[in-house]
Amino acid sequence: MEFLTSNLPWICAGIALVAAFVIQKKVMAAPAGNDTMQSLASAIQDGARAFLITEYKLLSIFVVVAGAGLYVLPEGGGLHTMIAFFSGAFASALAGWIGMHTATRAAVRTTEAARESLAGALRIAFNSGTVMGMTVVGLGVLGITVFLLGLNYNLQQVLGFSFGASAIALFARVGGGIFTKAADVGADLVGKVEAGIPEDDIRNPATIADNVGDNVGDVAGMGADLFESFVGSIIATMILGAALGAEGVAVVDQPLVILPLSIAAVGIIASIIGTFFVSTNDESKIHGALFKGLIVASIILLAFAYYLTNMAGANFGENLTGMDLFYSIAVGLASGVAIGKITEYYTAMECTPVKTIAEQAKTGEATTIISGLAVGMKSTALPVIVICITIAVSYSLCGTYGIALAAVGMLSTLGISLGVDAYGPVADNAGGMAEMAGLPPEVRERTDSLDAVGNTTAAIGKGFAIGSAALTALAFFSAYAAGAGDVNLSIDNPQVVIGMFIGAMLPFLFAAMTMEAVGKAAFAMIDEVRRQFREIPGIMEYKGEKGAPNRPDYDACVSISTASSMKEMVMPGVLAIAAPVLVGMFGGVVMLGGLLAGSLAAGVMMAIFMSNAGGAWDNAKKLIETGEHGGKGSDAHKAAVVGDTVGDPFKDTSGPALNILLKLMSVVSVLLLPFFIEFNK
Amino acid sequence: MEFLTSNLPWICAGIALVAAFVIQKKVMAAPAGNDTMQSLASAIQDGARAFLITEYKLLSIFVVVAGAGLYVLPEGGGLHTMIAFFSGAFASALAGWIGMHTATRAAVRTTEAARESLAGALRIAFNSGTVMGMTVVGLGVLGITVFLLGLNYNLQQVLGFSFGASAIALFARVGGGIFTKAADVGADLVGKVEAGIPEDDIRNPATIADNVGDNVGDVAGMGADLFESFVGSIIATMILGAALGAEGVAVVDQPLVILPLSIAAVGIIASIIGTFFVSTNDESKIHGALFKGLIVASIILLAFAYYLTNMAGANFGENLTGMDLFYSIAVGLASGVAIGKITEYYTAMECTPVKTIAEQAKTGEATTIISGLAVGMKSTALPVIVICITIAVSYSLCGTYGIALAAVGMLSTLGISLGVDAYGPVADNAGGMAEMAGLPPEVRERTDSLDAVGNTTAAIGKGFAIGSAALTALAFFSAYAAGAGDVNLSIDNPQVVIGMFIGAMLPFLFAAMTMEAVGKAAFAMIDEVRRQFREIPGIMEYKGEKGAPNRPDYDACVSISTASSMKEMVMPGVLAIAAPVLVGMFGGVVMLGGLLAGSLAAGVMMAIFMSNAGGAWDNAKKLIETGEHGGKGSDAHKAAVVGDTVGDPFKDTSGPALNILLKLMSVVSVLLLPFFIEFNK
Repeated sequence: MEFLTSNLPWICAGIALVAAFVIQKKVMAAPAGNDTMQSLASAIQDGARAFLITEYKLLSIFVVVAGAGLYVLPEGGGLHTMIAFFSGAFASALAGWIGMHTATRAAVRTTEAARESLAGALRIAFNSGTVMGMTVVGLGVLGITVFLLGLNYNLQQVLGFSFGASAIALFARVGGGIFTKAADVGADLVGKVEAGIPEDDIRNPATIADNVGDNVGDVAGMGADLFESFVGSIIATMILGAALGAEGVAVVDQPLVILPLSIAAVGIIASIIGTFFVSTNDESKIHGALFKGLIVASIILLAFAYYLTNMAGANFGENLTGMDLFYSIAVGLASGVAIGKITEYYTAMECTPVKTIAEQAKTGEATTIISGLAVGMKSTALPVIVICITIAVSYSLCGTYGIALAAVGMLSTLGISLGVDAYGPVADNAGGMAEMAGLPPEVRERTDSLDAVGNTTAAIGKGFAIGSAALTALAFFSAYAAGAGDVNLSIDNPQVVIGMFIGAMLPFLFAAMTMEAVGKAAFAMIDEVRRQFREIPGIMEYKGEKGAPNRPDYDACVSISTASSMKEMVMPGVLAIAAPVLVGMFGGVVMLGGLLAGSLAAGVMMAIFMSNAGGAWDNAKKLIETGEHGGKGSDAHKAAVVGDTVGDPFKDTSGPALNILLKLMSVVSVLLLPFFIEFNK
Repeated sequence: MEFLTSNLPWICAGIALVAAFVIQKKVMAAPAGNDTMQSLASAIQDGARAFLITEYKLLSIFVVVAGAGLYVLPEGGGLHTMIAFFSGAFASALAGWIGMHTATRAAVRTTEAARESLAGALRIAFNSGTVMGMTVVGLGVLGITVFLLGLNYNLQQVLGFSFGASAIALFARVGGGIFTKAADVGADLVGKVEAGIPEDDIRNPATIADNVGDNVGDVAGMGADLFESFVGSIIATMILGAALGAEGVAVVDQPLVILPLSIAAVGIIASIIGTFFVSTNDESKIHGALFKGLIVASIILLAFAYYLTNMAGANFGENLTGMDLFYSIAVGLASGVAIGKITEYYTAMECTPVKTIAEQAKTGEATTIISGLAVGMKSTALPVIVICITIAVSYSLCGTYGIALAAVGMLSTLGISLGVDAYGPVADNAGGMAEMAGLPPEVRERTDSLDAVGNTTAAIGKGFAIGSAALTALAFFSAYAAGAGDVNLSIDNPQVVIGMFIGAMLPFLFAAMTMEAVGKAAFAMIDEVRRQFREIPGIMEYKGEKGAPNRPDYDACVSISTASSMKEMVMPGVLAIAAPVLVGMFGGVVMLGGLLAGSLAAGVMMAIFMSNAGGAWDNAKKLIETGEHGGKGSDAHKAAVVGDTVGDPFKDTSGPALNILLKLMSVVSVLLLPFFIEFNK
């Protein structure tokens, strides 16, 4: 026990960060390709850096203001909460930065490696994903450990760390999501459709921005998102564990408080071992190799968890045995994989839903849209049932603490599952690089087969993101209800009903705002690309020589997408924070409880619906591009492209941001609960 | 008081039915046009009749089975409940039948009248809507009065009447909705797009089915829907009123039980008076004329309500004055109008949202879809706030009884508001008839201006439908919570959470199923229309002579749409009834409570989102057809047509059916609550 509290989390966090550093060096040591490739890569690196710097500058204003607010808050705030908040925000930003930094450098090296072999390319792409995975879990465990064990903050103060992470995650997801889709739509609509040049063609001024977008949206955004879930689920479990603890015992000596941190810590070791099993040179086995790594890590984690949950014997209080805790973790881990597999079914090219959409594309755009929407809506059913089973089982074993612990279990192998997830965008970028640098077709074929698998593993990643968001938000919600004291949170209390209606409405409003934001940002991009095609003489003859007079102005596109995404991310972000604060202050803690319940129920559905509809449209288009229903250039393909374009903001902006909305609103509510209670007295 | 309980509802129900009869005669007395028109009209009448007969035959099997189930139910059922259930189902079917019968006959007479003047056409179209309005309120008040006052059934038994009405309403909405959209899509896609002939062209084999669809979907389906809301809100209020009543006093002598019925009864008188104010010969004033009728009826209703709520003085129990009740009614009525006006804003051609969609249509299908979805999602915010205010105000005045009473207030002028709503499809059909019969263009212009206003008033009608569905479901929900006894319905109870997740998922699943049903039925229709164009020689030269050898086989299209809509409506209908029954039996009353809350929260949003997105796309297309952004035939128009086609199942099938889903699930739950309690003992 002593070892667990004082040493294990420190050691594991250290191992994770060292591993991230070592693997990053390994990635960087690989050859970076010829001059053209390096020049393109550095344009992407510069663009991504420029975006993140702009974003972080803007967010630092918000962070300072919100931090000052926390500092002066009479209840639930204070200096320590503010410091934890700043640290959470900084750690989240840092994780995003490192992920982006590595991914932009790994992509070009993956391309170079793909000239030789599939195995080498897979290794680099996956390694770069692992760097982010390790950074996220390392910083997460380290942050909590520093504040809880190092500085002896109380849990309410540590919660500030989670809030900081959530706030940055929301803006990163929304801002990055708007950027990437605006660039994507701009590049496709003007380049591919109007000018008739292929995707990832260097003559397209938006092509660099498009590649930058993949890095800031899919990599940095996703990293921040899951950092937040990871940290949030651990802290929520700790709060619920503290409520169960023996009186007079310090929080850090309570086994139920330390358990989630220990599980997260050993998950790092399990993940690292898992990564050694990811290797193949056979195209048909990439998916299997990644999945094997994940399963190995899960099994090792379960072995560790079995030891950790049982080592203290009946030390967890009456009616709560080590096995109860172990099974809660196991059911969480299993349900994450199950939701991932269900997501895969609804979005994979080989399965019925995507095939149906592709079939409907033959009758035009409208039927493509309708069937995609229907697939997305239908796809809510099974994940929700899995979540409900997880809740029922874990609750029956360990009460609300069990639900929270299941969330920790689901995210315990994040080190490797994030690696599996984040490798996709790197492979995607590597393919774009092969195209832009004019490399031989077999290079693109190798990266394409990596990318195709990346789409599937991304689905699994999304399953984890949604499932863990639902359980984490629920855990915070339990903490909220426990902290609200003796109030009537019954669903027939009209205050709860009003809160539920408002809460259920927020995901719809938020989704609408983010979708419209993409539209507006894309418009700005379209105008700029059109302008360049019109005004830069000889742009169509450009062959890629650096400094050529007819070179497209890539930076202008990056700047425009950056500026418009910054502008458009403010309102949705403000909504996410203002809604719970205003309702908590002027509607009271009961109405806010209803709001959290309503937004959780409706928000999970919207997140699944939008992510899966978008994923399914994307792959329906790709299925047709393999030659089905007339292949590229057919009417069915045109219809499928429309579906894919509608799906883009669904799956890469609104859908994933909804996860964070739910978590952020719950964290804010729990953090400010003492203030709301005081304010309404 | 004596007069109210024993005479007023009988008298008013009688007046409504007599008024319906008299107005129907008046409609029928108008000239029915030339031979071509009469022949086309009789084809539509036959088709609509054939559809309803097929539908009712199929539903009678369901009704008999469900009725038998109620009869043998150990708790919450019995002979009386079964009889009330049969009567509710029959009354709902009858209201739909009368509405359809009148509408199909009124359309051709509206066309004929439009040859002379706008005023005459308006009068006939509006009168036919009023026939349905009066039939619905007359049968509703009569049914409740017969069982409660005539046969002295208890309220749980009278609830069977509401369940019967709900069940038929769901199938009528879903079945009619599938029929009308399958026919619409089939007619448009093959006729307009592939064959290049105008809308409503008699050479199109699906054109009669398309017109039949307007009658069975928009008229009969909507009639059944609002009949159900009307009856449901009254009975739910009665149940809550009985719970507040003095002990030892018979239910029928409780003023709070009789009040909702009395309000509904005097609403009939107010509505009839209101209809006299609907008249104009000026195109620009149609909307004003209809709105004036509605406002006059509302003012008169309020005067009656003031008298009724205050006549018994402080008779309503302590802390509940007549003015409290009056204000609850008034706030309900006002919020119905407010939601209607908000709906109008989001869907009217003159307002920003629709203009934005039309603007986006210039950049193609994808942006049209995205902006329409965003408008629909955004449009949930204001109506939800209005509903929340209504809940807060009415609850603070009269507790949960006040919320239910607000729903009654909202629907109290249904006699005229349904007339305002149902006149739209009649005007639409009249325009189609003018086209098919080749009448001079000014006839079509007159019916078009009626139709355009009809689209706006339909928006108001939809606002009433959604608002009243939300409040009625909430009233039933309160009755459910009250009846569930001493159970923990708190939102932090995991059983409630599980129920909420499942409940929030159901509207998504239901919407997906109904959308897919439309798709499948439309496919069957498309095949048939293509077959006729291919196989009937000289079909393109057909000039409209009856019995000509090259006449399209209209009946075949009607039959195919009927058969496929019957097939496709079964699964969604079964889901709506099976879900609460299964969860109530095997999850228990607490989980079912959570299910109702979750489905209410998510379902209201989905209903608003889908209805308004569909309405906005429809009018964006119409706006472009007025010449904006290139007008008919432009690329923007093509994109807008795609939006409209996606919106069709949104606004006419899935969206409105969601309202009924919510109400039906609540009624089933309240009705079977005693059984669920017993079953889980």
